[in-house]
Amino acid sequence: MKIITGIEEMRSESTRQRAAGRTVALVPTMGALHDGHRSLIRKARELADRVVVSVFVNPIQFGAGEDLAAYPADVHGDRDLCEAEGVAVFFQPSGAGMYQAGHSTYVAEEDLSRGLCGKSRPGHFRGVTTVVAKLFNIVLPDLAVFGRKDAQQARVIERMVRDLNFPVRIVVAPTVREPDGLAMSSRNAYLSAGERRRAACLHEALNAAKGLYARGVRETDALKGKMLELLAGQPAAEVEYVEIVDYESLKPVSEIRAPALIALCVRFGRARLIDNTVLGTSD
Amino acid sequence: MKIITGIEEMRSESTRQRAAGRTVALVPTMGALHDGHRSLIRKARELADRVVVSVFVNPIQFGAGEDLAAYPADVHGDRDLCEAEGVAVFFQPSGAGMYQAGHSTYVAEEDLSRGLCGKSRPGHFRGVTTVVAKLFNIVLPDLAVFGRKDAQQARVIERMVRDLNFPVRIVVAPTVREPDGLAMSSRNAYLSAGERRRAACLHEALNAAKGLYARGVRETDALKGKMLELLAGQPAAEVEYVEIVDYESLKPVSEIRAPALIALCVRFGRARLIDNTVLGTSD
Repeated sequence: MKIITGIEEMRSESTRQRAAGRTVALVPTMGALHDGHRSLIRKARELADRVVVSVFVNPIQFGAGEDLAAYPADVHGDRDLCEAEGVAVFFQPSGAGMYQAGHSTYVAEEDLSRGLCGKSRPGHFRGVTTVVAKLFNIVLPDLAVFGRKDAQQARVIERMVRDLNFPVRIVVAPTVREPDGLAMSSRNAYLSAGERRRAACLHEALNAAKGLYARGVRETDALKGKMLELLAGQPAAEVEYVEIVDYESLKPVSEIRAPALIALCVRFGRARLIDNTVLGTSD
Repeated sequence: MKIITGIEEMRSESTRQRAAGRTVALVPTMGALHDGHRSLIRKARELADRVVVSVFVNPIQFGAGEDLAAYPADVHGDRDLCEAEGVAVFFQPSGAGMYQAGHSTYVAEEDLSRGLCGKSRPGHFRGVTTVVAKLFNIVLPDLAVFGRKDAQQARVIERMVRDLNFPVRIVVAPTVREPDGLAMSSRNAYLSAGERRRAACLHEALNAAKGLYARGVRETDALKGKMLELLAGQPAAEVEYVEIVDYESLKPVSEIRAPALIALCVRFGRARLIDNTVLGTSD
């Protein structure tokens, strides 16, 4: 596994591989890799000859008062995981390399990024689309793999790729869960033991909604009501949102007729957790 | 010369050429090609194996009340000029192809684009950076050639390329002028015969400032004062701005010490004309 920190070196590496006819897949991460990332890497390996994992804690996608300084990091563990998974290149650029003095250009998606997490995290998705555009231009991948756990992020990236014609195929891989259903996330590390036990309630709420949907309930007020009732049973859980939106537009729907995304965000102490499921599709 | 209107076809064409080891240069235009464009094409031919000229009147870089509907067009003349200049591909995408329903992603440069033309044309440079990012992702050029006449645009594009790591070299080619010094522009077509005669005053004002600079004047108030005095002699000329800015930052300077851009914008009837010169450099 090559470890690359320089932007020009990364670009030369990909240019060389692609000129030799090999396909390149990018798995962009902020490090603190877990089994969720492992599944993205495995998906990338299935689909391309060479997998590049980028590890970069992108400062511009964090707002004031968010957890940029505290974000978990484990460079040695990350490298070991990537090595074990057959990753070709571990790309770890520096902050100064990624954002030069006077950086003043941003990529912003202005529709799908407004609701859900966009409401409480202004500027977050602008930071995500900007760094992903940069990584696409540096790594020059044929495809990039994102996790379904960050469903809104995946939709925003898909829209960016469509609108700006990036020559990159976007693959969205299923959420990987702990045995009790908690979606894997680097931010789970913030949970105390007690919070960790209770954090499965996000998944339980989604399952409750799926159960009602399976029994024919289509009114989203009823589905959200059931979820909120269940979450109210966890006093430590501070609900930021529970929303049911059209999967394409990410706009709230009152009744599920087309594929819909049920997404929720719940805080436990300093951990802000998100999860989701898609209804009305075979996905 | 190939004429391509499809986005996927354009991308395949460039991918094929680059895979065969040939370099590709893009000259992005809004059509109504003149000798200024011709010089960009010639520069591109010097530097690359294959020249792609794109012709697309980009709606999102025009503001409300601007000249989108009236913008001059001459498709047959454009094709003839490109054919004569040895252009490999004439790329003419449709508006619907470039901006799909629900387009919601923009590239914005937020520093260099604020002053000069950015003041009176809010959103203009955002439209430019967005379409140029799209063209880069579609045409996949090794390099792209822009005209110095649109000096602020060139600086904004250079900054975008740096900040978003586009793998494209930006080349800025000198302004081409009519015999009386008027910078060539598709918008010169808006000038009446009388306005056309007077429009050389932009170049005369720049020359007056250069003359003072050559005699040692460095205070920008003195240089601007001279230019405004000269322009005031043309009652039909409505001055939008006369500014002297640092070439790197595009911020106003009171004294010329580093390379500086003298830029002006003057309206004659419905024609909004811009011109500029760089002082303090061998450029």
